Amino acid sequence: MTPMNDTRSAKIRLYVDQPLGQGQTVPLSREQAHYLFSVMRLGPGDPVLVFDGVSGEFLAHVAEAGKKGGTLACAAQTRPLQPPPDLWLFFAPIKKARTDFIVEKAAEMGAARICPVQTDFTNAERIRRDRLQAHAVEAAEQCGGTFVPEVCDLQRLSDVLASWPAGRRLMFCDETLAGQARTLGDAPRGPWAILIGPEGGFSDAERNRLRALPFAHPVSLGPRVLRADTAAVAALTVWQQALGDWG
Amino acid sequence: MTPMNDTRSAKIRLYVDQPLGQGQTVPLSREQAHYLFSVMRLGPGDPVLVFDGVSGEFLAHVAEAGKKGGTLACAAQTRPLQPPPDLWLFFAPIKKARTDFIVEKAAEMGAARICPVQTDFTNAERIRRDRLQAHAVEAAEQCGGTFVPEVCDLQRLSDVLASWPAGRRLMFCDETLAGQARTLGDAPRGPWAILIGPEGGFSDAERNRLRALPFAHPVSLGPRVLRADTAAVAALTVWQQALGDWG
Repeated sequence: MTPMNDTRSAKIRLYVDQPLGQGQTVPLSREQAHYLFSVMRLGPGDPVLVFDGVSGEFLAHVAEAGKKGGTLACAAQTRPLQPPPDLWLFFAPIKKARTDFIVEKAAEMGAARICPVQTDFTNAERIRRDRLQAHAVEAAEQCGGTFVPEVCDLQRLSDVLASWPAGRRLMFCDETLAGQARTLGDAPRGPWAILIGPEGGFSDAERNRLRALPFAHPVSLGPRVLRADTAAVAALTVWQQALGDWG
Repeated sequence: MTPMNDTRSAKIRLYVDQPLGQGQTVPLSREQAHYLFSVMRLGPGDPVLVFDGVSGEFLAHVAEAGKKGGTLACAAQTRPLQPPPDLWLFFAPIKKARTDFIVEKAAEMGAARICPVQTDFTNAERIRRDRLQAHAVEAAEQCGGTFVPEVCDLQRLSDVLASWPAGRRLMFCDETLAGQARTLGDAPRGPWAILIGPEGGFSDAERNRLRALPFAHPVSLGPRVLRADTAAVAALTVWQQALGDWG
């Protein structure tokens, strides 16, 4: 088989947590070996596409296949790294399935960093950062991504705002603007973040503080009440179209 | 309590399948009675917000509460009907949870009609129309909607295109345009539809047919591969911003 046929026939994409390069040997974790050899029934010589979030995507072949581990042999690069714009998504964790969904969608839509925040009306006291990170990895594997956004630990919104990085702008989805035509207008490009509130909305204190921030741009997402997960995808679309890499 | 306090304290919104008006008695189904009286523990005199998808939202009070039924007494209108734009969403049904999600999101985002279609690469042979319709109702109940989009029966895409209604335009999300800047541009307002393909994409025959249609507008949803459910929300956002009621 030629590498081109291999690339086409390689149905499996795998994120590996080590820098990749042509000719390199890639050790597999027990979970990866189980997935490739027991679940997907791959054997020596079978092709897999691998990416490390930094070096792009490579064609690789199974070199050793075992029950508890194995190795891949990394061949040519098949795609360069496609980094997302410098966009962070802040969101208030909600019910488990919808939080998973927000992380998955943020990875698909091209956020560079995913940051759960605790707001006045957020119930979540903690998150399972490793589980959410795994969702971001899976979204990249499934959707042909070469980059995996980092999922941060849960932080308080007040702490985030108090230590806001200089030069980063904030698109703040203000549900009290529903029905008003508030868009990004001609806001400048550069480092940005999006903030999605919890199901119960922001508290008055939070909203007043957000509105007073010089780097915050309040935006309306139409006349309807959107669930937080819907608002996340809609906000990412609005931003990517206006200031991101959709143009 | 004044009606205003009632409106605020009425946490429950209920879709009822009969035309509403002030002074009207609203019979409850067995399921509705179970939900209101056994699950939510409401009793006589307690407030509920009701909507019928046609007449707007009304404040109502429990008149009779039984184990297998009951009635509400409909008081004043609290909100007028907020109909969505004349936008239909065609999509190829995918895995159950993601199909449910597309229906929920279409109802939230303001689609007037939701139409599952069978494409060359769609696995689904049938859908549970009643179950999907219930998801659209629940989305309207949860998100303050006063309108419920109709979920249509599964149709073949070829049949849909062969009997396309005159004057309706089609925003067709063409994943082969990924990375190109193809937007709605200055497309005219009026009746529209969005078509989202299945996970496997459209077949070449389908894509060629779609491209040749005089009413079709191919659009790109950015440089990344999106899952069908993500593409649905992104496409609804793009359309609502450009031609819908988000302005």
